[in-house]
Amino acid sequence: VSERARALDAADPLARFRGEFVVGDPDLLYLDGNSLGRLPRRAIARLGRLIEAEWGERLIRGWGEGWMEAPRRLGTKVARLLGVGADDVLVADSTSVNLFKLVVAALRARPERRTVVTDALMFPSDLYVIQGALDLLGGDRRLVVVPSADGLTVPTGALAAAVDRDTALVALCHTAFKSSFVYDLDEVTALAHRSGAWMLWDVCHSVGAMPLALAAAEADLAVGCGYKYLNGGPGAPAFLYVRPELQDRLRNPIQGWLGHGAPFDFDSAYVPAPGIQRFLAGTPPVLSLAALEPGLDLLLEAGLDRIRAKSVALTELLIAGWEAELAPLGYALSSPRGSARRGSHVSLGHAEGWRINRALLEELRLIGDFRAPDNIRLGVAPLYTTFAEVDEAVARLARAVRDRLYEKYPAERPTIT
Amino acid sequence: VSERARALDAADPLARFRGEFVVGDPDLLYLDGNSLGRLPRRAIARLGRLIEAEWGERLIRGWGEGWMEAPRRLGTKVARLLGVGADDVLVADSTSVNLFKLVVAALRARPERRTVVTDALMFPSDLYVIQGALDLLGGDRRLVVVPSADGLTVPTGALAAAVDRDTALVALCHTAFKSSFVYDLDEVTALAHRSGAWMLWDVCHSVGAMPLALAAAEADLAVGCGYKYLNGGPGAPAFLYVRPELQDRLRNPIQGWLGHGAPFDFDSAYVPAPGIQRFLAGTPPVLSLAALEPGLDLLLEAGLDRIRAKSVALTELLIAGWEAELAPLGYALSSPRGSARRGSHVSLGHAEGWRINRALLEELRLIGDFRAPDNIRLGVAPLYTTFAEVDEAVARLARAVRDRLYEKYPAERPTIT
Repeated sequence: VSERARALDAADPLARFRGEFVVGDPDLLYLDGNSLGRLPRRAIARLGRLIEAEWGERLIRGWGEGWMEAPRRLGTKVARLLGVGADDVLVADSTSVNLFKLVVAALRARPERRTVVTDALMFPSDLYVIQGALDLLGGDRRLVVVPSADGLTVPTGALAAAVDRDTALVALCHTAFKSSFVYDLDEVTALAHRSGAWMLWDVCHSVGAMPLALAAAEADLAVGCGYKYLNGGPGAPAFLYVRPELQDRLRNPIQGWLGHGAPFDFDSAYVPAPGIQRFLAGTPPVLSLAALEPGLDLLLEAGLDRIRAKSVALTELLIAGWEAELAPLGYALSSPRGSARRGSHVSLGHAEGWRINRALLEELRLIGDFRAPDNIRLGVAPLYTTFAEVDEAVARLARAVRDRLYEKYPAERPTIT
Repeated sequence: VSERARALDAADPLARFRGEFVVGDPDLLYLDGNSLGRLPRRAIARLGRLIEAEWGERLIRGWGEGWMEAPRRLGTKVARLLGVGADDVLVADSTSVNLFKLVVAALRARPERRTVVTDALMFPSDLYVIQGALDLLGGDRRLVVVPSADGLTVPTGALAAAVDRDTALVALCHTAFKSSFVYDLDEVTALAHRSGAWMLWDVCHSVGAMPLALAAAEADLAVGCGYKYLNGGPGAPAFLYVRPELQDRLRNPIQGWLGHGAPFDFDSAYVPAPGIQRFLAGTPPVLSLAALEPGLDLLLEAGLDRIRAKSVALTELLIAGWEAELAPLGYALSSPRGSARRGSHVSLGHAEGWRINRALLEELRLIGDFRAPDNIRLGVAPLYTTFAEVDEAVARLARAVRDRLYEKYPAERPTIT
């Protein structure tokens, strides 16, 4: 490990948080917290209590003792990560389901506008969901996808050219899942509003890795997931945000009972709850919600400014290592060089990316993500990733190529379904 | 405890299953397994392993080691409870979200038919979801609600009069949540089909309490929840069934990535997976799925015929106790008398139902459910409810009235939101 990494770890004000997570094997480099965050130790205790003391002993009474409020209670914590009001966020369902609810609601609220504008960096599942919503509502509604010239970024000017008085909604990933490009929240939201469009942000790859100020930017809608930097566990519940002024104007298309104003009156007519509560649908998954709460608490204890500062320092160290050791071995930087427009992961392209990633996983004990066509995506999670780990990751990435370790793996990628 | 109850417990072939569940306080009568099933001991071990060994140590690799298949793997087990093919069920999302997907899909597949027929015994949330789907698709689509003359049952003739060539879908709860009335699956499904309508069954209050034969009945669609007789825990994931012939004709309106044919190719266009997989949307809640699996295994080990036989014997004992001890105290039987048309819960009406239920909960250690206007709903779960418990419940219900214990509780019901 380099002097530089050692010094950075020694001075890290967040160092103590690593001990809050289960790190079974210190030699395993886990640079995939941007895909599934590590297990907070507190989540083990919380789930144990939930399962044995609450489900096991309190049984149905648990609904009156905290379960029913969990989507809102966790929402108040996510709200602090988003920079929005405590009453304006719900934790429930999956990102796909929440995106569907909000896109359908927005399109129905403004039937005179026919397009949704997005970009080519958008997470594909979001494209599928939005396209599905447009098809469902029909008419001549359509999706406008702004291309990316370099595959890494989209200039604001290109977006501006696509947004017009026919745009109902601009929907973008704040941090791009592949390149890590980060949009300027204020600038792009204002751009949408200039044409009267509403702005929806998917913050899956931002939330918990940097401060967000969605209310200050006057964003209208947002969704995000709980299993990345929030450390909520596999398939953790997702969240949604609706600007307060819009909450009572929008209609949740999935009219489940928990979005009803008085669900236990069992009336036959649906009367939506006031405010954000109407965006609930079915019964929330209490176990998965409980698993998410400790991760939220840890982020709030650490503070998002410190998290972002460490995230930038970690990715800067990784990029310095790339420049010195990896670029000469054929690795390309497939993320923005300037930290202001880069999230908490770095993509490195390589002609042998697929095979290198196999070697990293299977013999070099480095877990990242492969993303087609040639990207190795390395995420740093400031609560538990160390600078020494980043240094060691660079060394292993170099070894995979220098020692030709990747050559023993087949070049064909299986189709993963 | 009566001789009769003692003898029934002694002869119970399912008696050993009670030991598979956490029963902390044997004096607490839990007759609410129809609302939230008890905690299977195996679920504690399964969740412990999932959390510490899988999430904690295997991290993202867990997706390649069983998590991704969980919605289908659990689906094969639920399929046996439904009497359908192993490949025709998914476990995912909530009942509300699944119902929404299927109702929207069915209505879009047959735009020439404008109505959904249901009945006044339907679970209100289902009415809300269906009404929401009808409003969303618009046109002159509408809901037809067949009334119940006695509030307990709906005769097949009344349904038959409402279903015609304009009916796209007949959607009913197989077991009514309040009265426990059970429809004849075969007869009602055939009735729908005679007019060319499709048949959707909500089996929330049936599944796991009695054998179902949805494929033999030629049912088209079904949904149900995991937290009642399946013992999957609070907010457990729900399931959906689609008749094989319809799977590739129907379109999931919520086009999330896990319903895509090749989600990890990250193509920009949505191409639905073949078969039932297309009805997945977002990333499934792995923790909550894991919690559900042990309960499914226990039901399959016990066998649904034995479960149904014990369920009938338990509700018969309860009704015999009502007739002898409770009817004279003003309790009315608000469930069908004949066991063939009765599910695994019994509703007892009483003018002081609300206050009696408070007394039962707060001093008589009997947990049931109050359902407006005057019903005390008592559910028996054959895997862990004993005949002695039913006997004792009758005694406590009698005491609440005979000793006027309810009088100290206010008559006004708070609005629970």
